[in-house]
Amino acid sequence: MKTTILGAGAVGCFYGGMLARAGREVVLIGRAVHIEAIRCGGLRMQTQSFDEQVLVSAFTNAAAVAGSKLVLCCVKSNDTLQAAKDMAPHLDPDAIVLSLQNGYDNAERLQKSLGRLVYPAVVYVATEMAGPGHLRHHGRGELVIGQFAGSSEVVAEFALAGVPVSVSDNVAGQLWAKLIINCAYNGLSAITQMPYGQIVAGDGMREVIDDVVNECLEVAKADGVSVQNDIRSAVAGIAQSMATQISSTAHDVARGRLSEIDYINGYVVRRAAIHGIRTPANRTILALVKLLEQRNAESKSLI
Amino acid sequence: MKTTILGAGAVGCFYGGMLARAGREVVLIGRAVHIEAIRCGGLRMQTQSFDEQVLVSAFTNAAAVAGSKLVLCCVKSNDTLQAAKDMAPHLDPDAIVLSLQNGYDNAERLQKSLGRLVYPAVVYVATEMAGPGHLRHHGRGELVIGQFAGSSEVVAEFALAGVPVSVSDNVAGQLWAKLIINCAYNGLSAITQMPYGQIVAGDGMREVIDDVVNECLEVAKADGVSVQNDIRSAVAGIAQSMATQISSTAHDVARGRLSEIDYINGYVVRRAAIHGIRTPANRTILALVKLLEQRNAESKSLI
Repeated sequence: MKTTILGAGAVGCFYGGMLARAGREVVLIGRAVHIEAIRCGGLRMQTQSFDEQVLVSAFTNAAAVAGSKLVLCCVKSNDTLQAAKDMAPHLDPDAIVLSLQNGYDNAERLQKSLGRLVYPAVVYVATEMAGPGHLRHHGRGELVIGQFAGSSEVVAEFALAGVPVSVSDNVAGQLWAKLIINCAYNGLSAITQMPYGQIVAGDGMREVIDDVVNECLEVAKADGVSVQNDIRSAVAGIAQSMATQISSTAHDVARGRLSEIDYINGYVVRRAAIHGIRTPANRTILALVKLLEQRNAESKSLI
Repeated sequence: MKTTILGAGAVGCFYGGMLARAGREVVLIGRAVHIEAIRCGGLRMQTQSFDEQVLVSAFTNAAAVAGSKLVLCCVKSNDTLQAAKDMAPHLDPDAIVLSLQNGYDNAERLQKSLGRLVYPAVVYVATEMAGPGHLRHHGRGELVIGQFAGSSEVVAEFALAGVPVSVSDNVAGQLWAKLIINCAYNGLSAITQMPYGQIVAGDGMREVIDDVVNECLEVAKADGVSVQNDIRSAVAGIAQSMATQISSTAHDVARGRLSEIDYINGYVVRRAAIHGIRTPANRTILALVKLLEQRNAESKSLI
């Protein structure tokens, strides 16, 4: 089962690297900075159990998706539609297309743009690109997918690479749960440039996070999605298990790059507007991140 | 009418300086950095119409309040109770005590602590301390007070110095209106370190400010206070008339100092809790400012 990873970032390189390391046929498609490094010396996978250069085919052009039976879309949410447009002419009609992205509606947007079925995968992994072609893995790596024609093949393919994939009858609920966790921390971490543990220690911050979570749950409910009952303790747990972590949104904002905030709190605010639900806490966080994102992008362009 | 100004900051130096410049008997009480400069060469008042060294008595000890018939409390809200404690033993029993401070409940807190009547004044002035003993005045300067025994004497005293003081039958409403403007801008400016004009230009920011104002109005109403009908346009107008202005809260946070946020959005959040009103937008802004205030105070203490 030939697999193409569209988006050679921290998520794409992990799953592509794991499959390639297990001897599976893998193609990585990404930006030149990483692709050139991977072509020269392989993908460096630095994990808690190994540190290896993994050889894997790597391209900057989406035409390399041709002939793949499994396609994992791992680009940032802002690049989803461009990725769809780039891969569309080259996509095998039988390929299984999965979205391994933050946010709730990327699979839906890919599906609409490609005019074919696309399935979401819920990704639980802590990774970062430590440099060109250099992946650092901090922990976890499991995926959750729904039941669809081909889901057992996906499970089997990843099993060969030691990646646990479970099939759930409530992928929507799990995507929303992850979205809620992102809504609770990513923006606050971006605004303050502080790690999760320090944020929740702030005066009044637990109440703010409660407001964010409650607004999200109201929107999920209106959207007919059932979120796990223990979501509040899951949110609280993140501040302990990832106490020293700064969000990807915080990194993007600090670097003057477009963050995924429009697909995190922004998604909730848009869905809320459709249902006539008030989301002042999410809206405040969203607007502040966007303002800082813009300010930093402008000061970056002046350098 | 001998007047003492407690708190020789940007507000206190303006009103004290205007009275002294008109030949009135004035005592300034404040921190050594300003008092020493004022003792050496007078208070420098730099305004759009004059730039003068104004001679005025200046002390660091609150005992200098003795014998004053008018006392203007101009300290930061965080220092109100300390100011009350410091002046209490020296206060003339017949003195009129006014609070010229940000926030809504400073006069009330002074009154409770001093065990005597204290009246609030609504202050409309744009000033800053540009250096030790150096006041810069950007515009306005009028005061609004309520009707009380002695209010006409206060009006007359300030009239001698060219400071317009009007007597209103709804000081509470005007204090709340000013509080709402502070709630709308001070925190957002502190979080982003951006001026008001740029803040309102941010994507979604007008909606956030609407949320803040609506929450405030609900709390004011529950507190039985009637706020001017055009408060929304007054709030909007500030972003134009003070487009390049950064809030005092932003200055305090940037310098790692305790800001007045606990007496701005913090006051609204506390009153809301008493009435069981939800204030998620104010609460988010409050908690973010407090977190940044603490972070910056800590990094300052490491220098």
